[in-house]
Amino acid sequence: MFLPEWLKHYQKEQLNGDLIAGIIVAVVLVPQSMAYGLLAGLPPEVALYSSVLPLLLYAAFGSSRTLAVGPVGLMSLMTGATLIEMDISNVNDMVSTAHTLALLIGIILLLMRVARLGSIINFLSHPVISGFVSASAIIIALSQMKHIFGLDIPRGLPAYETFYQVASQIPQSNLTTTVIGISSLVLLWAFKAPLVKLLTSISFSESAIQFISKSGPLAAVVISTFGVYYLALDTQHQVSIIGNIPPGLPGIILPNLELSLIRELLPYAILIALIGYLESVSIAKSMASQKRQKIDSNKELVGLGAANIASAISGGYPVAGGFGRSMVNFTAGANSPLASVITACLVALTLLVLTPLFFFLPKAALGAIIVLAVLPLIDAHTLKHAWTYDRTDAFSLLVTFFTVLIIDVESGIIAGVIMSIALYLYRSSQPHIAIVGQVGDTEHYRNIDRHEVNVDQKVLAMRVDENLYFANTNFLEDTVMRLVADNKAINHIVLICSSISVIDTSGLESLDDILYRLNKVDVKLHLAEIKGPVMDKLRGTDFLNNLGEENVFMSTHQAMQALKSDH
Amino acid sequence: MFLPEWLKHYQKEQLNGDLIAGIIVAVVLVPQSMAYGLLAGLPPEVALYSSVLPLLLYAAFGSSRTLAVGPVGLMSLMTGATLIEMDISNVNDMVSTAHTLALLIGIILLLMRVARLGSIINFLSHPVISGFVSASAIIIALSQMKHIFGLDIPRGLPAYETFYQVASQIPQSNLTTTVIGISSLVLLWAFKAPLVKLLTSISFSESAIQFISKSGPLAAVVISTFGVYYLALDTQHQVSIIGNIPPGLPGIILPNLELSLIRELLPYAILIALIGYLESVSIAKSMASQKRQKIDSNKELVGLGAANIASAISGGYPVAGGFGRSMVNFTAGANSPLASVITACLVALTLLVLTPLFFFLPKAALGAIIVLAVLPLIDAHTLKHAWTYDRTDAFSLLVTFFTVLIIDVESGIIAGVIMSIALYLYRSSQPHIAIVGQVGDTEHYRNIDRHEVNVDQKVLAMRVDENLYFANTNFLEDTVMRLVADNKAINHIVLICSSISVIDTSGLESLDDILYRLNKVDVKLHLAEIKGPVMDKLRGTDFLNNLGEENVFMSTHQAMQALKSDH
Repeated sequence: MFLPEWLKHYQKEQLNGDLIAGIIVAVVLVPQSMAYGLLAGLPPEVALYSSVLPLLLYAAFGSSRTLAVGPVGLMSLMTGATLIEMDISNVNDMVSTAHTLALLIGIILLLMRVARLGSIINFLSHPVISGFVSASAIIIALSQMKHIFGLDIPRGLPAYETFYQVASQIPQSNLTTTVIGISSLVLLWAFKAPLVKLLTSISFSESAIQFISKSGPLAAVVISTFGVYYLALDTQHQVSIIGNIPPGLPGIILPNLELSLIRELLPYAILIALIGYLESVSIAKSMASQKRQKIDSNKELVGLGAANIASAISGGYPVAGGFGRSMVNFTAGANSPLASVITACLVALTLLVLTPLFFFLPKAALGAIIVLAVLPLIDAHTLKHAWTYDRTDAFSLLVTFFTVLIIDVESGIIAGVIMSIALYLYRSSQPHIAIVGQVGDTEHYRNIDRHEVNVDQKVLAMRVDENLYFANTNFLEDTVMRLVADNKAINHIVLICSSISVIDTSGLESLDDILYRLNKVDVKLHLAEIKGPVMDKLRGTDFLNNLGEENVFMSTHQAMQALKSDH
Repeated sequence: MFLPEWLKHYQKEQLNGDLIAGIIVAVVLVPQSMAYGLLAGLPPEVALYSSVLPLLLYAAFGSSRTLAVGPVGLMSLMTGATLIEMDISNVNDMVSTAHTLALLIGIILLLMRVARLGSIINFLSHPVISGFVSASAIIIALSQMKHIFGLDIPRGLPAYETFYQVASQIPQSNLTTTVIGISSLVLLWAFKAPLVKLLTSISFSESAIQFISKSGPLAAVVISTFGVYYLALDTQHQVSIIGNIPPGLPGIILPNLELSLIRELLPYAILIALIGYLESVSIAKSMASQKRQKIDSNKELVGLGAANIASAISGGYPVAGGFGRSMVNFTAGANSPLASVITACLVALTLLVLTPLFFFLPKAALGAIIVLAVLPLIDAHTLKHAWTYDRTDAFSLLVTFFTVLIIDVESGIIAGVIMSIALYLYRSSQPHIAIVGQVGDTEHYRNIDRHEVNVDQKVLAMRVDENLYFANTNFLEDTVMRLVADNKAINHIVLICSSISVIDTSGLESLDDILYRLNKVDVKLHLAEIKGPVMDKLRGTDFLNNLGEENVFMSTHQAMQALKSDH
């Protein structure tokens, strides 16, 4: 019988932590997932359905012990944007398209596993991710302003346009809604650091503090719902409420598999799948490294793929590992995915018996929950760090950030990737080339511009600090010929290859050109410190035959010694 | 007064070579340019106009002494494809759009000069260029079959479709046209090697041989024109002829500058400008290096930009430096751009007095001239070479080649560039990492898998053969942690940075992670052989502060010595 690894070796003493963490995460998850449903423009039950079966499937197939899977901000935002771009406004169609989207995402993740494409996310650099996440957090927070202030702002606008609309409509806000929204924000904020401080000062036990401090969303939901119900704010002051949530567990359904729909959804599905995978793996890795556990990125693909397929067939929408809830799970002491199983059971219980209680839940409170959940994602530190350490990385970050805000999420991530690859290639197309000399009597050779070194008038030793490939072959050729033209006394050039790990076909042709051109001016070319794999490839090429293996030296020192005695 | 460099230092003894080369190139250019006009779907006079003023402007501003500018195959093909894709069929509109295209190309090249973007062509690797040129040559040759066999095949089809159409229509070919076409091909072929051999054997002087052997196209034109005229093949056997060419020099005109037209043409213009620039610079460089002259790629941008603007305002279409004619110019002994000035004067003379003679020139002969001109561009050598040396480069070549043949020229070049960049990045995302040991008692450290070396049980020295950047940070982290897990005895890791020229922000964060994770398992991290520029950037970062500068060693040997005595 199939049993996940963690279950086979489950130990009794893990249960306590899993139980507490499972309960706390459920307390956070129920209100949060309804809020994320709102963000995607979907009915709250769709998000709640996404919080049952997917958790069980991830527990069975995923590799992280503490990743909390379910509806998350970024996926909800992108799902909502996809539905808007496809021009679907009928609620039933939106829900059914969301199922299909989740199914496609699940299948894409499984196919990535089969094709071993997990490492594709390496091409998203940290600064690009940082700019992307910060800008998305701002978009998500902005999108909730209409709920918090009770405004009527269309969805799917670029961020700057939403900002402008919010600012210009503020005078028309619904006062009662605004009071609910702002006080929810204050309440949620108070549940974080201030409450913990207070409870610590009056000597609450640590586990009690943890439980209470994570109950902010629950408290906001309970208080605001009761307030709306008791004061009849929905009918008397036009406060938007959640309304009817159909009770009961989701049934198993087959998503719409029309070919034309699939074709239209596919590009969105690919991008959302990549983002969801990226987000989940980064969170899982950062938690695992703190406990010296390992994340298997292939298993992650399977776990997330299975979770999304489960979501699709149980009436849900795309899911991933969420940053906030995973941290709650982790710090609450979850030891194994059993915590997620417990969470799923509690959400199922909520669906069975508690949905009538959410009828009067004001959307303003859910908006406040989202805002507080995404604000910590806005990350200025990486920008500051990149700005001082590597300006080009800061540039990629800013391009991503502003493209997301001005155009949209998809364009932002694509612009960021293109930007960072282009800047990297540009940099490696103009490699650092150092002329080196001997340090004293040692066997060390260092840059003549940085160290006190001895140089030979007739032998020029140069170190190319980059692979030789198509983008920089012209640069190398030009540099070598310029050096020869500027130093008429030179008879020998030693090319130090310690930094060269790859010589592609263009690079090889270029070396052959250099050799030919140097021969014409009676300068001899020599190579030193070629790495094994590079030398393996060079053997048998015309270039090496023309050069002669006797002109390849193991070390720079050996080359310099041999050439010195040459005169 | 502005005088080009070459004219200021002109020497009498250069004149002879320039005169002969100028005449020979004119003899080749007149028929060839009419043929290329046909290829672009433009009237022959447009191509002849492109062979006067542009040559003079390039002579004034270009940096190559022997580049023969004018209509070329690739540009004609791409211009024709652009006109078809823009759905222009009226000849007057086609001509006027071609003027605008040439103007845009000229302006783009000048802007590239201003923005110093000349090095952008470095991102076209040799294999991609080879695949692109070979496939284009095949397309061009295929496109002439309709002229050679007198068939009716629409232009602008993908190559495989053209091939299919030609093959299926061969039974309907016009016999007379086919005879003219095939005999022109045979004549042109005979003028190459066989005729040279014959003339040499009967002791002709070398310059006479050169002149005669280059007159193949002229001979084909004269003989076939006379044949058509004398036997009235045009009226009696429906042989397609050139017809009326308006006599006289081109007037100066202002191309159509409608904004909507410019916007539509711009993407094509950018690509054609890049290709033209690339082709010209490669040819110029290969000739210059044989005579130890220098090509200034910035001056090339100005020269080609000016030539295209000149073509636009004198009734021509896009021009570039042509491979075949430049070689003719070079081998015929051209010493300076004066040769091109002479060529331009002869083409002008042709326009003034000779155009009536071309009336009966059969298109089949022009088709044969094009086919013989482009066949040498089909290059199997680079594929063979890349296949044995570097399979991924061969793969890029083939992708480019087949994309050009199956889709079109533009898609091919774009697919090739993306392919070669993606493969390069993929390779550098999984860098070679070598564990090294001491070679005997020397200060050299080499890969333990390749050399007999001594290793220390407690100190692991590893060399990363690649820059640390976003694409490979995960790989490095995983490898280091795996090595630590597999070698429990290790207390120290020495990271040899001799191949690391760039550490970007992601790389730095990754190093910090590695340091943190190694500390947790009581393994100390050390760096050796960091390059100056890399060390400059690391100073002041949290990572270096956490590591401690005392753990940075100049050489691997020093690190190993220090750590050995540590126990």
